[in-house]
Amino acid sequence: MTDEPLDVGVLGYRFMGKAHSNALARLPMFFDDAPDVNRHTLVGRDEEALAEAAEQFGFEHTSTDWEAVVDEVDVFYNLGPNHVHAEPSIAALEAGTPVFCEKPLAPTLDEAEEMRDAAADAGVVAGCAFNYRFVPAIRYARNLIADGKLGEIHQVRGRYLQDWLVDPEAPWSWRNDEEMAGSGALGDLGAHTIDLARFLVGDEVGEIDRISGQLQTFVEERPVAGSDETRPVTVDDAYTAQAEYESGAIGTFEASRVTDGHKNDHTIQIHGSEGSLKFSLERLNELEYKGADHRGYETILVTDESDPYLEHWWPPGHVIGWEHTFVHENYEFLSAVRDDAEFHPSFEDGYEVQRVLDAIERSDETGEWVSLT
Amino acid sequence: MTDEPLDVGVLGYRFMGKAHSNALARLPMFFDDAPDVNRHTLVGRDEEALAEAAEQFGFEHTSTDWEAVVDEVDVFYNLGPNHVHAEPSIAALEAGTPVFCEKPLAPTLDEAEEMRDAAADAGVVAGCAFNYRFVPAIRYARNLIADGKLGEIHQVRGRYLQDWLVDPEAPWSWRNDEEMAGSGALGDLGAHTIDLARFLVGDEVGEIDRISGQLQTFVEERPVAGSDETRPVTVDDAYTAQAEYESGAIGTFEASRVTDGHKNDHTIQIHGSEGSLKFSLERLNELEYKGADHRGYETILVTDESDPYLEHWWPPGHVIGWEHTFVHENYEFLSAVRDDAEFHPSFEDGYEVQRVLDAIERSDETGEWVSLT
Amino acid sequence: MTDEPLDVGVLGYRFMGKAHSNALARLPMFFDDAPDVNRHTLVGRDEEALAEAAEQFGFEHTSTDWEAVVDEVDVFYNLGPNHVHAEPSIAALEAGTPVFCEKPLAPTLDEAEEMRDAAADAGVVAGCAFNYRFVPAIRYARNLIADGKLGEIHQVRGRYLQDWLVDPEAPWSWRNDEEMAGSGALGDLGAHTIDLARFLVGDEVGEIDRISGQLQTFVEERPVAGSDETRPVTVDDAYTAQAEYESGAIGTFEASRVTDGHKNDHTIQIHGSEGSLKFSLERLNELEYKGADHRGYETILVTDESDPYLEHWWPPGHVIGWEHTFVHENYEFLSAVRDDAEFHPSFEDGYEVQRVLDAIERSDETGEWVSLT
Amino acid sequence: MTDEPLDVGVLGYRFMGKAHSNALARLPMFFDDAPDVNRHTLVGRDEEALAEAAEQFGFEHTSTDWEAVVDEVDVFYNLGPNHVHAEPSIAALEAGTPVFCEKPLAPTLDEAEEMRDAAADAGVVAGCAFNYRFVPAIRYARNLIADGKLGEIHQVRGRYLQDWLVDPEAPWSWRNDEEMAGSGALGDLGAHTIDLARFLVGDEVGEIDRISGQLQTFVEERPVAGSDETRPVTVDDAYTAQAEYESGAIGTFEASRVTDGHKNDHTIQIHGSEGSLKFSLERLNELEYKGADHRGYETILVTDESDPYLEHWWPPGHVIGWEHTFVHENYEFLSAVRDDAEFHPSFEDGYEVQRVLDAIERSDETGEWVSLT
Repeated sequence: MTDEPLDVGVLGYRFMGKAHSNALARLPMFFDDAPDVNRHTLVGRDEEALAEAAEQFGFEHTSTDWEAVVDEVDVFYNLGPNHVHAEPSIAALEAGTPVFCEKPLAPTLDEAEEMRDAAADAGVVAGCAFNYRFVPAIRYARNLIADGKLGEIHQVRGRYLQDWLVDPEAPWSWRNDEEMAGSGALGDLGAHTIDLARFLVGDEVGEIDRISGQLQTFVEERPVAGSDETRPVTVDDAYTAQAEYESGAIGTFEASRVTDGHKNDHTIQIHGSEGSLKFSLERLNELEYKGADHRGYETILVTDESDPYLEHWWPPGHVIGWEHTFVHENYEFLSAVRDDAEFHPSFEDGYEVQRVLDAIERSDETGEWVSLT
Repeated sequence: MTDEPLDVGVLGYRFMGKAHSNALARLPMFFDDAPDVNRHTLVGRDEEALAEAAEQFGFEHTSTDWEAVVDEVDVFYNLGPNHVHAEPSIAALEAGTPVFCEKPLAPTLDEAEEMRDAAADAGVVAGCAFNYRFVPAIRYARNLIADGKLGEIHQVRGRYLQDWLVDPEAPWSWRNDEEMAGSGALGDLGAHTIDLARFLVGDEVGEIDRISGQLQTFVEERPVAGSDETRPVTVDDAYTAQAEYESGAIGTFEASRVTDGHKNDHTIQIHGSEGSLKFSLERLNELEYKGADHRGYETILVTDESDPYLEHWWPPGHVIGWEHTFVHENYEFLSAVRDDAEFHPSFEDGYEVQRVLDAIERSDETGEWVSLT
Repeated sequence: MTDEPLDVGVLGYRFMGKAHSNALARLPMFFDDAPDVNRHTLVGRDEEALAEAAEQFGFEHTSTDWEAVVDEVDVFYNLGPNHVHAEPSIAALEAGTPVFCEKPLAPTLDEAEEMRDAAADAGVVAGCAFNYRFVPAIRYARNLIADGKLGEIHQVRGRYLQDWLVDPEAPWSWRNDEEMAGSGALGDLGAHTIDLARFLVGDEVGEIDRISGQLQTFVEERPVAGSDETRPVTVDDAYTAQAEYESGAIGTFEASRVTDGHKNDHTIQIHGSEGSLKFSLERLNELEYKGADHRGYETILVTDESDPYLEHWWPPGHVIGWEHTFVHENYEFLSAVRDDAEFHPSFEDGYEVQRVLDAIERSDETGEWVSLT
Repeated sequence: MTDEPLDVGVLGYRFMGKAHSNALARLPMFFDDAPDVNRHTLVGRDEEALAEAAEQFGFEHTSTDWEAVVDEVDVFYNLGPNHVHAEPSIAALEAGTPVFCEKPLAPTLDEAEEMRDAAADAGVVAGCAFNYRFVPAIRYARNLIADGKLGEIHQVRGRYLQDWLVDPEAPWSWRNDEEMAGSGALGDLGAHTIDLARFLVGDEVGEIDRISGQLQTFVEERPVAGSDETRPVTVDDAYTAQAEYESGAIGTFEASRVTDGHKNDHTIQIHGSEGSLKFSLERLNELEYKGADHRGYETILVTDESDPYLEHWWPPGHVIGWEHTFVHENYEFLSAVRDDAEFHPSFEDGYEVQRVLDAIERSDETGEWVSLT
């Protein structure tokens, strides 16, 4: 443990770059026991855009050479597209630099495995940034489950519905390309759901024992912005899956980018022998909970001082937003780095998710249930 | 077509017997163009209980011999347990008597096929009483879909969640027995969902092309009421399924009798390229609809005079209940009998549902996706 | 007490006539200990319409002379417009015939007082048909309050919002006329709310101590259907009121017929020192309840066998409708007539409501708070 | 207009101090055209607490002497308790320093009037920090109303319900004291509602023409934290009011700090001749809107790039929190200071709200409606 500020290098300066930079900037005012952090170097390819982003996000330096950076900083954040997750992350780990990598861990199971192994070999903190584990209502839900309030877990139901590709004219991006993204809704959204289910009920139901899944692409090609061209969509617009866990519990999972009327609807429901609960990301300050002493679901506003992370923010009823999950995960990750402590979700956790994503794809191809244990 | 009242014979005098008898009793006051009906004969085995029920439900006669009744009456209602659906229904059809049979059509696909064939041979009206087709909000939803308001249909999601078996001490009944019920949540609840999806989007997406499913039993044996014994549960407490339709649309289905906090939660959601909708049975007067000119779901109270069946009831906002679906389906069925007209859901429709239920069971057993076309 | 069927005479054959006739018709199948009832005579002015209604509603006789009928029948139902509430009801009471009169009891406080006095003199059952007291969820709520689950009652909030006059072209009817209706939204809708609040918390907070109110008419004249004429609207489209109860609790009340998007939204909320609850008529099977052991509101589906009146109907989760409240109130009223027992809401209750309506009108006129005790 | 950073001095370092400091800190990363700001001096009385807060909130200096500060800085924020709003704000204005003062503008109408006049005399920007005007969904709603989507406005209904004083043992604070706070729920919460209604429909309905109100205190004394003493509560726990606007529209208002189950429930509903809308602070990313082309309310997630302020934040569906309203209002206020432009809500707006609060108190005392025009 050291009192020196941690120099953070960040690869990627778009959506995720902004979300993490904001989180880093907010820690000092709200989490007084968080490690001090220097936003040291922002890494990217386009020098001009990079310089502008570094200015906006408060970084001291920029670099177009991640190989130099991973060695130089105390912590390396890999927030680039999925296809650049493996190489820089592994390089950082080999340099002994802790890594925080965006999800899904990798576009393929092979790469995820290499990353997991590199993390194990390096023996430094390696986190996979599944931010929804850090929603207060989710932490609260997990505590209820761990306390046995739902009894024996029977059913898990998770879905992640968005609409940004429902319009066939929505432009092509790397997220529509198998090479760069690995998969579509499955990897981008499904990875979150699979991880969240593991986080909430993994201790109770074990890992997934067998799974069947399907992927579907409704729009086969999309226009390239600023041109007359179209490019093929080589990933799924939507997937569904159903699973049996080691305990005998059953699960259903689904995601889509073409679900009209749902912007960021990540909903998870858990049912046990003595209770049920439901969480929905678009109302992330709320948890619906049916306990043994209830007749119906209670809508809990999880904003009390006693709720996870809430003492750092505002009085009860003063709701927080999506971005706060990044503050919480950065707080936990950086604290683990400082203390050389365990951090979850780890690369190992990211790899376990990837095994499930991979099995869903194989089930779709082979028309068979896939065994995972 | 005749003006003579129709003599109706009804087999079964418990839950469904009461629901249909009530429906028959209410037709004259609310549907003035409905056929006149005599509640002629109530059929059962226990003479004392039968007499009491006949008195309560307003039947003129009772009989313990369905074979005599099917020939005697103008219409035969088969509301008994699933394992007595086939024989009396087929006998009635062979006697040229129109039949209204509760769902699921039969405990096995073989029996369902025989019933379908008997109906085809008889050439009389043979209805399968999937009452949820007759919810005004469902009819309204179907019209929206048929009018193209949702565009091309991409996703169907249906679930039917109840809680009456979540307590392991809830007593054993014929509904827990494979011989008598065929299946558990799958046949009892899933049949409704599969049929409702067909009704809503069948014209748009075709039949199910392939399906995978799983069944699970969480409580292996249950106490026999009024004794110290237990009996084994030989049917599913819950099932899940996922399907691809002929059009490429995908569907997910689920039902459970062990979902704490859900009493009669039959929820169906449809998503298309231009809109979405959601219906939930516990709020059956409402429809949530997201059209192309909307930013979010609109909650429509489907109780206007212009809404399906509503001109027969009360002014806008004066909600109807579950039982009204039986009035509507009896109105339609009996009108079809009087007019010798087509009626849906027919035995053919019931058989199509049974094919899907059967495929789900086979997928669970074989660990493979099952092709249906 | 007698076992002879009660001959019921009913004045009025439109909306309320249908609602009560249906209730009478349904009692035998669902409430086996209800008194037997003959739908004896239907009373009205238009002989043709009357004959048709009698046929539809199952009445044996018709009459255009209520004076003859009130003496002839065992029970008299006064379901006519407000301005014909007093005279026939008083005549019936003077003839010793129990009366069930629709709400509000009368168009003016003077008439309501005469009716109350006539009932007191007659010493027979005289009921004012505030049907919402007979919603199962409302009975359940009242029990919670009586059991002290909400602690000391602090706040009452009631509103009744409809939209059927929001269109300025909606046609004129007797409900827009002060002579015939007494008042508008205030008497038609507000009467329900004032009574429901009294029913729920009257034992806890006492009567209203002082009140201020306002009435507003947004559309000054309306077209007469089938003509080019318009007629002036001489009643309120909307009212608001605020009150202090004897206990120090405070209340706010509101109704409107011009609230776009609200069809029959009768919502009442109660807040106490230890809990809160909320009921809404458009979802009448539900109650939202926040108890001392809750963090938020629990949505209770009040459809269990143990819930008020529910053992007479369907299994849990099989929701009932608006019309069922009439079955319940007819069951209670007729049982009281048979047993010569007390019945609430009585004419006395109806009069107490009228005092409040009258005070609201006076406050609007004088610009002062009005004292009621 | 200048490019020099604005030196901001802030009086108050508790709840509001933190909320505004956070807002100032976040502007550069998200609003690139916002003025540069130095968090210059934090003002308070307790030097130790002040030093700690200055460190946490990122202020360069501290001072216990506001009189020196108001002259020294470019902008003065008055975030202290209500009873210290007037003197420092007026001093700042007299020094020509723009002022941003928390709401309600003052504990009494007299002081509010002095502040308004001082602002008018000074001719610099003087803002009253009603932050809820800066919720994106509220801005969106206001645009709908201004575009005539609701037609002629008939009804306004606002309530602000909290529960932090429902426990009689909740400790006494300055907010329970008339000297320091002016009033209780009325000034603290009601001020927000009155202002929000003015903001949303003021252009359509004019000012309030007459009003009646009541205040109630349910808990007469409260314990002093850390002692055995109690102190009297000399302000209201709850108020209600009803009003008629110049246009004839009617309004109802209510607030409470003793409403169990409601944490920060600021809900406002507007009904017009062609539509309705509803906003609720605990779900501040949502707006419920019923337009002329709708049958029911549409739930709009106001998080699209095209929505007010949202282009500065995250992609659609990535919800923001309560604190973001402070970022928006600081952006607007500071931009107005830089550009010497008009800013609303101004001291004039704050004064108008105070007139209404004062009239409500007078109506409660005199038992009369109070005329405001």
